[in-house]
Amino acid sequence: MRGTVIHAPGEVRIEDCDDPKIVQSTDAIIRTVATCVCGSDLWAYRGIEAVPEPHPMGHEYVGIIEEVGRDVTALKPGQFVVGSFATSDNTCPNCRNGFQSSCVHREFMSTCQAEYIRIPNAQGTLVATPDRPADEFVPSLLATSDVMGTGWYAAVAAEVRPGGTAVVVGDGAVGLCGVIAAKELGAKRIIAMSRHASRQKLALDFGATDIVTERGDDGIARIKDLTEGIGADSVLECVGTPEAMQQALRCARPGGNVGFVGVPHDVQIPGEELFFSHVGLRGGPAPVRRFLPDLIDRVLTGRINPGRVFDLTLPLEQVAEGYKAMDERRAIKSLLLP
Amino acid sequence: MRGTVIHAPGEVRIEDCDDPKIVQSTDAIIRTVATCVCGSDLWAYRGIEAVPEPHPMGHEYVGIIEEVGRDVTALKPGQFVVGSFATSDNTCPNCRNGFQSSCVHREFMSTCQAEYIRIPNAQGTLVATPDRPADEFVPSLLATSDVMGTGWYAAVAAEVRPGGTAVVVGDGAVGLCGVIAAKELGAKRIIAMSRHASRQKLALDFGATDIVTERGDDGIARIKDLTEGIGADSVLECVGTPEAMQQALRCARPGGNVGFVGVPHDVQIPGEELFFSHVGLRGGPAPVRRFLPDLIDRVLTGRINPGRVFDLTLPLEQVAEGYKAMDERRAIKSLLLP
Repeated sequence: MRGTVIHAPGEVRIEDCDDPKIVQSTDAIIRTVATCVCGSDLWAYRGIEAVPEPHPMGHEYVGIIEEVGRDVTALKPGQFVVGSFATSDNTCPNCRNGFQSSCVHREFMSTCQAEYIRIPNAQGTLVATPDRPADEFVPSLLATSDVMGTGWYAAVAAEVRPGGTAVVVGDGAVGLCGVIAAKELGAKRIIAMSRHASRQKLALDFGATDIVTERGDDGIARIKDLTEGIGADSVLECVGTPEAMQQALRCARPGGNVGFVGVPHDVQIPGEELFFSHVGLRGGPAPVRRFLPDLIDRVLTGRINPGRVFDLTLPLEQVAEGYKAMDERRAIKSLLLP
Repeated sequence: MRGTVIHAPGEVRIEDCDDPKIVQSTDAIIRTVATCVCGSDLWAYRGIEAVPEPHPMGHEYVGIIEEVGRDVTALKPGQFVVGSFATSDNTCPNCRNGFQSSCVHREFMSTCQAEYIRIPNAQGTLVATPDRPADEFVPSLLATSDVMGTGWYAAVAAEVRPGGTAVVVGDGAVGLCGVIAAKELGAKRIIAMSRHASRQKLALDFGATDIVTERGDDGIARIKDLTEGIGADSVLECVGTPEAMQQALRCARPGGNVGFVGVPHDVQIPGEELFFSHVGLRGGPAPVRRFLPDLIDRVLTGRINPGRVFDLTLPLEQVAEGYKAMDERRAIKSLLLP
């Protein structure tokens, strides 16, 4: 089969790879219907994360089940499925607590920009749609497997409530999906921090009520102007840099909440500042599995359309261009069709 | 009047001071019925916090109203009152959100180890008891003004739930009150981390179900043994050191919560570890005012008896001995009677 391999920063290639096979009795093999490039894939592409040796890429996927291991009893070949970037048995204590991305059997997916994918813990990971969905739903279903699930978790971790105020730090695909989540969860005021016209427009389409272009102290001052002088009830941190985390913490009101879903790079949180801020903080790789049935339903009923974050669609063979366009910020997110 | 002044680390004296007077129309003056020494007072006493010049001490108090400013309409001389270490107008947005210790008019109390005390923001700060309480209730009412209110906040911030598991890090007065709070909030298993026999006993009396004497990795392993291998739902961090914070974060299960109420000294929280832990974190100076009416009721109906943390009672004139006994860990907490 054809699959994506990164050889060095900036060097992503589509190549002939071995077809994946059932390894454990809990595995499934799916034929990829759509996959995509994630903002977090750019860490390696940009050389911020080391690439010690060539390895496959990709952790977002929807597909059709080809084959299942003998312990996968609730799924069958031919079903259209969505899964998370983190696999889960969905039965362990952490899964039962709703944190499937901390499943004791978790494996992070990393081979999904390919024609076929082996899914460990298939039964606890994959959610089948009632029927084969129409093609128009595929981008949004694909989005639920990571960016929409992650934006949703950011909003849940930030405890967005009906009538509350929410700030979204980060205008990538996750931040934009965070706007959708904040709206669905009933926030009255949703402030997107963005400097890019096309992303501002999408944020407004998704339900943002205000755009703040300032950053740092000026950005914090603007947020306070919009929130009774005290800051927002909920802040979604969707970047992962020290600057974004500081921005997020300082935009939240005393007693407010920050949900952080950007994988932190060199972030240290000063204990004393966090203490006196009274802000609650929760992050992590999103437990997408918790939200998938609900998100799939919202997509298939047309309530949400997170697939709009894909502003570039390419054949899988052109995956290298998909990375390049995102790296150069010509695209928010690249969808790949095998 | 007589009041307590710290002159240098280790040098606390009772002296003649000016009687406090109404300064603002929102002030009240109370005659102190009981006051005490706080674990946080020891930071200065031990020289960990600088003492650049002599200053009064004390922030915990119950008393009788002597005089009120003209804007204090809901309180009157003769009433027995309890207040928080942080004053609050109880009307600003932060107060309305339940974070009175971030009131926009907040002042931290600091002159309470004295015969008379000026209370700023009196109307929003002081809570009067229905009648003059019997002397036996005075220690527990005094405890609500800080340590019991703070232990309660730790449990609320750690989201203690009926049937859940709670770990308390720190066996000082706040930690012991945290045990009371965890029990009142319905935790099924309450694990106190303590190495001191007298404190272990009090923790068990207050409702702890288990005592863990190990610290560090051994302590974390013991907690996991007791909690399905995953950690506790809720952890109350009641110390404020880097070691205690790390212990707390690592004792919580994925998706669990840490409430931290020890004022952090040199604490930095690594973003990546917090991220992958999935642990929620909230701290701060406790919004005691939010809890006071309820806590006073629990004391006066005999449900809780946090006054037991006072294992040394002295006349105010012997305040120096009250500090010394706590510094040498001969006493958990020293109560002072003017």
